[in-house]
Order: sequence, then C-alpha cells, then structure tokens
Amino acid sequence: MKNENLYQYILGIADNSLILGQRLGELCGHGPSLETDIACTNISLDLLGQVRNYYQYAVKIANDGRTEDNIAMLRKEREYLNVLLVEQPNTDFGYTIARQFLFDVYHFMFLNELQKSNDLTLSAIATKSIKEVSYHQRFSSDWIKRLGDGTEESKKRIQTAIDELWTYTDELFHLTEVDKLMISDGIGVDVTKLKESYYNKVNDILEEATLQVPESKYFQKGGKKGIHTEHMGYILADLQYMQRTYPNMAW
Amino acid sequence: MKNENLYQYILGIADNSLILGQRLGELCGHGPSLETDIACTNISLDLLGQVRNYYQYAVKIANDGRTEDNIAMLRKEREYLNVLLVEQPNTDFGYTIARQFLFDVYHFMFLNELQKSNDLTLSAIATKSIKEVSYHQRFSSDWIKRLGDGTEESKKRIQTAIDELWTYTDELFHLTEVDKLMISDGIGVDVTKLKESYYNKVNDILEEATLQVPESKYFQKGGKKGIHTEHMGYILADLQYMQRTYPNMAW
Repeated sequence: MKNENLYQYILGIADNSLILGQRLGELCGHGPSLETDIACTNISLDLLGQVRNYYQYAVKIANDGRTEDNIAMLRKEREYLNVLLVEQPNTDFGYTIARQFLFDVYHFMFLNELQKSNDLTLSAIATKSIKEVSYHQRFSSDWIKRLGDGTEESKKRIQTAIDELWTYTDELFHLTEVDKLMISDGIGVDVTKLKESYYNKVNDILEEATLQVPESKYFQKGGKKGIHTEHMGYILADLQYMQRTYPNMAW
Repeated sequence: MKNENLYQYILGIADNSLILGQRLGELCGHGPSLETDIACTNISLDLLGQVRNYYQYAVKIANDGRTEDNIAMLRKEREYLNVLLVEQPNTDFGYTIARQFLFDVYHFMFLNELQKSNDLTLSAIATKSIKEVSYHQRFSSDWIKRLGDGTEESKKRIQTAIDELWTYTDELFHLTEVDKLMISDGIGVDVTKLKESYYNKVNDILEEATLQVPESKYFQKGGKKGIHTEHMGYILADLQYMQRTYPNMAW
C-alpha cells in the first residue's frame, strides 16, 4: 500500500474509539439510572460515529476493495492498535467512569492538536469530533467528582478503579515508529508533549474530587503494537460474531 | 440425511453437555478455592469428553464430510438444541452450583435410562458417562447442603439461585417430535417418566439443605427447539471465535 504509514496511523487513532465504544455499548440497558444509561450509550454512539469517519478515510487510502466493516470487524487481534486502557472491563460503574475520564482528558488534548494536522481530512475529523469529546470529558469529570466526594462506598470504589486503571495511562504518551514518521510529515500529533498537561489536569480533578493521585510508577503497555490484555479476545469475539457468522452481512 | 432423526436426537443430548461444559470452563482459574476450581474444571472436561463421543457418532451418521469441530463450533444459534437451564450464567458460585445440581440430577436419571437404548453406541456412551455424572451429582448435591445449611449469606444466595433457575427445570421433561420418534424406535428415553422421581429427589436434597422448594408454577422453554435466551449468543461468540477467525484450525 502506497500510504501504509498513514493508514496505520489512522487505525491507531480509530481503534481507541472503536474498542471504548464497544465497551460502553455493552452497558446499554444496564446503567445505574436511565439518564446515565442513555448518556453512556450516546457516548458510545459518538465514538462509533468518529470511527466510521476514520475508517472511511482509511478505506480510501487503502483503495483495494476493503470496506469499513472489514476494517472494523475482520482483523485479527494483533492487528488492532488501541491502547490497553480502553479495553479494560466495565467492572463496576466506578471503573466505567474512571476509564472514560482517563481517556477523555487525553482524547480532548489529542484532538485539539490533530486539528492542526497538515492532513486536511484528519484535521476536519478532529474538529468535528472535539465538540463531542468536550461533552464526554465534562460528563466523566463530573462523575469523578460526584463519586469521589460522595458516600464512603462510592469514594472507595472510584479510588480503587482509578488506582487500577492508572497503570494504563502512560501508554497514551508512547510514540510508535509510525507516530514518529507522521509527526515529521506534519500529519501526526507528538503525544509526548501532552503528557505533562494531561497529568496536571487529571490530578487537579482528582484533588477536587477529594481522591488520592496514585503513586504507582509501574505502567503497562503493548496495545499500540497489537499486544493486548486477556480481555481483548472476548471483546473481539462479541464484536466480530455477527460478521464472521454471517459473512458480508449488511443491515 | 438417512438418519436425520437419530442425528438430531444425538445433538439434543450432546448440546446440553457442550454448553454446560463451556459455562463451567469460563470459571477456570476463577473458583472460590483451588479445590473447587479444579473440581468445576474437571466436570467441564468430563462433559466435553462425553460431547466428543456423541459428536463423533453424529459425524458417522451424517457421513458427509462434516467433523466433530464443525458440529461443535460452526452451527448457527438456532441449530443448538440444549435446554435453557445449561446456558444460564455463572452469576455467583450459588448459581453455578444450583445450575449444576438441577442438571446433574436429571442427567444421571437420563443416562441411567439411555443405557437401555436399542442403539448400542448410545448405550455404551451412557454407561461410560454415568460414572462421571454420578460424581458430578454428589459434588453439586454436597455443595447445595453446605451452602443451604451454611451461613446466612450462603443460604440466601443459594436459595435465590434455586428460585431463579427453577423456572428452567420443567423443560428437561418436554418431548420434541424427534424424541417421540426415537422413543417409539426403542432408542430414545421417555423423559416424561423421569419427572416425578426428579422432583422427589431434588426436593429431598433441598429439604436436607434446609432450603425452600420453590412454588413457582411458571416455566420457561424453547432451547430444545433452538429458541434460546439472550445469553446464548454470547456463549457462542466465545465458543466459536477461534474456529471462525481461523477457519479449519486444529491443535
């Protein structure tokens, strides 16, 4: 493929939203209240809408007959490039919110930079998406505060979730080889430059929520290279079931 | 297929063990103690071993190139004929034990009759399997008593599980059209004749466990005709993932 690097770069961005959207979609009909249920499902739909924009662009670049459905649903596990954070399970509402919060703060900063990309399609997708992600970030930050500064039980649970998911945050700021090439072409975002303001922002909100900022210095990584946690296979089993069982199905 | 009815009859028996075995297999490494974990995984392996005997026989009858892996892993949801009971989730250890107990008592009685089948292969599989199932029944009955006559918490949980799963017991004794044909050929088991002794046995053990026998007279059905609960699709997504993602794979 002529633009293999750009193609891979787009998948790296889109796969985060695909897998997080799939995780949130699992909760449809299972939220703690009707309002929250609908909010989580709406965020899922926003993310999957963004994914379609990215994959449609990727299909154009590949230009070899593959479709957005192929890309979304027929790759093998190691071909998905999402960070480990977004594939972590909906253990309880605290985990769902903590995962969302830790991703949203990054996602907003990332899209803000992607708007400046030399690639006009990516820049346009970023400008369209950032309005939605601004809302996601407000939603998850508000919940961090409500749960952290809520009851003894809610504080304990959200702190546990933050502590456990913290270990997946560092990977957000790793550069792959493709990232480096895209940055030097003026297309990609240098995520290493977002790291400091990310942790400042996250820490501010955790403190406002009367939560402890985790002290762990040990971090997990691998997703960006296709090396996933044990959860990924189960996600793909659900995600791919219909397309693999009924090949070429369309709604 | 010449022996379509016998083929379907075998699948009906085997699918119960396949789906229950898959459910138990999900718990491997997640049991409440090492001993119990190994016991549940062993029961799963027993059931899957029995399944292989049945499917290998079904393959011989079909005699059209299909393999036991095809039968196990490439059917569509409505082609699986297991009862709804065995597809119910591992909600907590109480549910796992209650599901196992309610199936084991039936399974033992069923195999005891199947030993008398005119079909010598089925009779031989039954004779081989019943030794294992006799152990399963002892394991799950013992746990019913320990949990029922245990702490307040364990009693509450096992009673909840029995109450909820009770609604799936009646289907065990329904006759399909294929069952009726197989009974008249002297091959199949007339499960309606097992119903009274099943409930007597189950009720005796529940009473010994100081548990209430549920009074519900409303029962769910459908699995024997391929109409499953919402859980079935998720089970198949996991069960079929490898075979559908890597077609014709073998270990």
